[in-house]
Amino acid sequence: MSICIGIVGVSGYGGGEVLRLAATHPAFEVTYIAGESSAGAKLSDKFPGLPARLGDLLIQKWDPARLPAIELLFASLPTGESRPQLAAVSPEIRIVDIGGDHRYVEGWTYGLADVWPEQIVGKTRVANPGCYPAASLTALAPLVAQKLIDPTTIIIDAKSGVSGAGRGGGSTFGYAEVNEDVSAYGLLTHAHLPEMTSTVSRLAGTSASLVFTPHLIPMTRGILSTVYARGNATTQQCLDAARAFYKDRPFVRVLDKPPHTKWACGTNLAFVSYASDPARNLVMALGAIDNLGKGAAGQAVQNANLMFGLPETTGLEGTALWP
Amino acid sequence: MSICIGIVGVSGYGGGEVLRLAATHPAFEVTYIAGESSAGAKLSDKFPGLPARLGDLLIQKWDPARLPAIELLFASLPTGESRPQLAAVSPEIRIVDIGGDHRYVEGWTYGLADVWPEQIVGKTRVANPGCYPAASLTALAPLVAQKLIDPTTIIIDAKSGVSGAGRGGGSTFGYAEVNEDVSAYGLLTHAHLPEMTSTVSRLAGTSASLVFTPHLIPMTRGILSTVYARGNATTQQCLDAARAFYKDRPFVRVLDKPPHTKWACGTNLAFVSYASDPARNLVMALGAIDNLGKGAAGQAVQNANLMFGLPETTGLEGTALWP
Amino acid sequence: MSICIGIVGVSGYGGGEVLRLAATHPAFEVTYIAGESSAGAKLSDKFPGLPARLGDLLIQKWDPARLPAIELLFASLPTGESRPQLAAVSPEIRIVDIGGDHRYVEGWTYGLADVWPEQIVGKTRVANPGCYPAASLTALAPLVAQKLIDPTTIIIDAKSGVSGAGRGGGSTFGYAEVNEDVSAYGLLTHAHLPEMTSTVSRLAGTSASLVFTPHLIPMTRGILSTVYARGNATTQQCLDAARAFYKDRPFVRVLDKPPHTKWACGTNLAFVSYASDPARNLVMALGAIDNLGKGAAGQAVQNANLMFGLPETTGLEGTALWP
Amino acid sequence: MSICIGIVGVSGYGGGEVLRLAATHPAFEVTYIAGESSAGAKLSDKFPGLPARLGDLLIQKWDPARLPAIELLFASLPTGESRPQLAAVSPEIRIVDIGGDHRYVEGWTYGLADVWPEQIVGKTRVANPGCYPAASLTALAPLVAQKLIDPTTIIIDAKSGVSGAGRGGGSTFGYAEVNEDVSAYGLLTHAHLPEMTSTVSRLAGTSASLVFTPHLIPMTRGILSTVYARGNATTQQCLDAARAFYKDRPFVRVLDKPPHTKWACGTNLAFVSYASDPARNLVMALGAIDNLGKGAAGQAVQNANLMFGLPETTGLEGTALWP
Repeated sequence: MSICIGIVGVSGYGGGEVLRLAATHPAFEVTYIAGESSAGAKLSDKFPGLPARLGDLLIQKWDPARLPAIELLFASLPTGESRPQLAAVSPEIRIVDIGGDHRYVEGWTYGLADVWPEQIVGKTRVANPGCYPAASLTALAPLVAQKLIDPTTIIIDAKSGVSGAGRGGGSTFGYAEVNEDVSAYGLLTHAHLPEMTSTVSRLAGTSASLVFTPHLIPMTRGILSTVYARGNATTQQCLDAARAFYKDRPFVRVLDKPPHTKWACGTNLAFVSYASDPARNLVMALGAIDNLGKGAAGQAVQNANLMFGLPETTGLEGTALWP
Repeated sequence: MSICIGIVGVSGYGGGEVLRLAATHPAFEVTYIAGESSAGAKLSDKFPGLPARLGDLLIQKWDPARLPAIELLFASLPTGESRPQLAAVSPEIRIVDIGGDHRYVEGWTYGLADVWPEQIVGKTRVANPGCYPAASLTALAPLVAQKLIDPTTIIIDAKSGVSGAGRGGGSTFGYAEVNEDVSAYGLLTHAHLPEMTSTVSRLAGTSASLVFTPHLIPMTRGILSTVYARGNATTQQCLDAARAFYKDRPFVRVLDKPPHTKWACGTNLAFVSYASDPARNLVMALGAIDNLGKGAAGQAVQNANLMFGLPETTGLEGTALWP
Repeated sequence: MSICIGIVGVSGYGGGEVLRLAATHPAFEVTYIAGESSAGAKLSDKFPGLPARLGDLLIQKWDPARLPAIELLFASLPTGESRPQLAAVSPEIRIVDIGGDHRYVEGWTYGLADVWPEQIVGKTRVANPGCYPAASLTALAPLVAQKLIDPTTIIIDAKSGVSGAGRGGGSTFGYAEVNEDVSAYGLLTHAHLPEMTSTVSRLAGTSASLVFTPHLIPMTRGILSTVYARGNATTQQCLDAARAFYKDRPFVRVLDKPPHTKWACGTNLAFVSYASDPARNLVMALGAIDNLGKGAAGQAVQNANLMFGLPETTGLEGTALWP
Repeated sequence: MSICIGIVGVSGYGGGEVLRLAATHPAFEVTYIAGESSAGAKLSDKFPGLPARLGDLLIQKWDPARLPAIELLFASLPTGESRPQLAAVSPEIRIVDIGGDHRYVEGWTYGLADVWPEQIVGKTRVANPGCYPAASLTALAPLVAQKLIDPTTIIIDAKSGVSGAGRGGGSTFGYAEVNEDVSAYGLLTHAHLPEMTSTVSRLAGTSASLVFTPHLIPMTRGILSTVYARGNATTQQCLDAARAFYKDRPFVRVLDKPPHTKWACGTNLAFVSYASDPARNLVMALGAIDNLGKGAAGQAVQNANLMFGLPETTGLEGTALWP
């Protein structure tokens, strides 16, 4: 079986990572690539290491109403543009939207693939989770679902590499200014907060309340979420809950030591761990991912596999770059 | 006036930073340098850029009972060694202990210089705060002292550069493994926790309870502490409290935006900021420092200035490296 | 077809990269893993993201005289240990030696796979090239073979990431000291110089003379070799020569712009480019690789493929991590 | 004595570093700051750690024809703009031009301060050398002046941190793309080549010919120049020549081991070293600097000191940040 796929937004880091994964995916054939700034160029101009079969593809001018005969589109468009543009895509083409416009939007399935895989099977419109939610919710889900923490007391302190900010931003994201620096941003107001609150509420069956602080740290890839909540489960109970929750799920590793983001580099894996201090009514959850893997392209491919009924790990068997 | 000073542990990063600051300190003359591994070498072998006056000094074998005629010793010794060794130093030599052995130990003054400067004036034995406490307590002190937060609900999530771990540790702290990685460590058990709990309790006048999670991030210098606590003050009330608390204190900058550690690089400055959500009973405090500056050598020199009745900023006027 | 393979030295970066590549190689089954320091541990203790099939393997105590029934051994042993130890391995087990002991040693084939693939087919003992030679010789080979440069005038200025130094070295290779630093080392005396001189001489059919300066730069992976030599070919003649030389070779990309090491990250690719100034009798060649890919494990797998008559790209189809 | 100085281009990295040095310079009083993009802001908005005395200065709109009463202007303007704009500055105001427009231009003195200090004393218009020339020429000057190398055979292979590229450039200089990457650029055509060729010719008293290859490496500050030339001096003869040449010069350190750029971080120092292989008629010179120190602002302040007859090291006594 060979599924003809397209990618729009290939110049961005998320779209580029979809291309990297699709290039070796045994059931996908990349036949359509579109971009704004790079239209007209050969794909090998941007990615000089691609095999000729892919490198010789021309990047097309993006026109959602006139797509070629593809079965699946991975869309990585700027926030606010994704919604109107993808509305013009033929309903016969399935879509995974890596951007933020369709999360918890009617007509679209929220693609938290490790938690609700069965809901994605056969769907035609899937909204990929944000990068911070992917890291945080994977760690939180077992605790929330099994009521080991109070969902109104959750504090998420997350640390992200720079690729999550995309290719814009000028000197703020320049090497000279990011190297040897760490800072928090978007205090109490980050765009991923509603997505996480909605998901935790859905898992808890009750209204959740979250505090979320993203931080920019000097690395290219990776997100670590350190989560604090009220609860009196022991560390072992948390680990047991997570191991039961993720039993037979192929991409989540439950560890009894704090995870490193490097362990996920280039993969769709998520590493979660837990620590608690019942005497103080405190539970900690840790989630480590590659923000372009599980946090974007990796999960997008996982969602696509589920949509087409493929084995979930197809094309995602690669292990992490080390070191 | 010229005060003859000595430094033991100059091969370590903290001791080396004391040397850098002392080299241009107008009231200090460095006359004694000691180390274990490097004894016998010229100082310029380790620090090739030093002026000849300093570079030609020989590193002495450390013998606390037979020190030359110095008035002040900066000690940067391994944990556990500092206590027995410094006991042998003549009482006529004042000591700033950068290591952890004498914090909250009888006979020693805890040198949180921006908060309790007057307690350090004229003292002969001062224990320099740890690097994480320096970042965290500077941000917390105004809130705790003015009872804007509940001191039993404090969660400190701190991110540190690698130099805080010293020069040992092998490949765990090697460039290849630290680059492109972030991880938490010492969950719920880090050695700096009692020091912070004691200090917050002292500031609060009541028993505090803290959660503390240190993280290692890929940078050489810098610590950012992101602190969460229960409280219903507004952001403005927090900022006002901090500005009042640190009025006329020369090294603390209270900002209305999240601080960057880079702003402190190479200096003794601490940047603090605040954000709150009274409706949710949440207050956030942020503290950014150079872990080798305010977190070690900078504060040590500040303490020494206070001990000798010098203007507090003597030798500490340098501004941050940018970028 | 499934070839049972073993890896010794899996704790090192080169051995670990062989494991990463072998894990998804369709014709290899990893059945034996050996190490010194890590013997007794489960493989997943060191590589927490491995699938259970591999992660549950126990790391064996290395005993070259008593290996299990494997057909191929990848050896990544310290310099000086490889030669005596591999002599004890049964002749029925093929070996790719990633270490330096067997390059240009009788009984072993020098595995510069992109240049002399046909010499490796069917061989049982192959010495993998060093990382600097892999980067430098791939760029130089077409110029030398086609006599576009004078082989007695070659100057190689190479820049390497830190993983090339392995996991030892202490604080010299620590993040704190490597970040924000660059230096040259091994001036005129580096161990890779004889290997490169021998290979260039062999390609030239006459005695070559090389100058080689390695540099350590703050990155984990990657080598860029910038090569200068006397010659009066135009840039276009150099490019044409390289394109002819590497016609149908799957892992070498000849570019008309300076290559970036990042384009090779995680792959077995080599990017080469050329620039010349005939009026000044100068030719420049540039070669960019991943030092753990083409510079170690990638080329080792390529050699193994050739030894077993597999398609050369088997298991090496992955494209580079970007960014 | 207090000299009122101004800085134009303070938002750039070079201009910002002049501000950092001027802030603690005992003979300078910063009274005028100008910029394009940042006009109207308080200086502390850009540099939050400045003392109030400086931080409260307003950044002025740059108007070269209407400058306030300053005695000295440090100009860090874009290439091409410096020449017309500085022509409008009153001749009573001395200028150090950090930009490239006035190097080897009539009416301006080329400010290679460690080599020709006496030529700068009392001058009113000084063109600061480029960053690559500063690193390369400091290493080369003794060899060329004392005819130990053939000045028509010089090859300069230089490695620079990213701050040399300034604050523009978008994602090309973004952390995500620069981290884990090295590349060469401007092959055979870089703008600093004529400046270096002119200077070497002047030192040699004959027409020189240079090859120059700049490289971008993942660090913020620092340049290492590795230079190759024909010559039959021994290593010791080269070292002796350099020690004689730089006798009593305060900012050049001649070392018998390869220098690290980190040793110069934040300083105006230059470290040079040499290695040769007389049998092969090869001499190597190495020069390591901070590109924003000796390569820009440090040398600019040194030039200003010379222009005003101050001790050359005034305000430049700081030692390097370590690590």
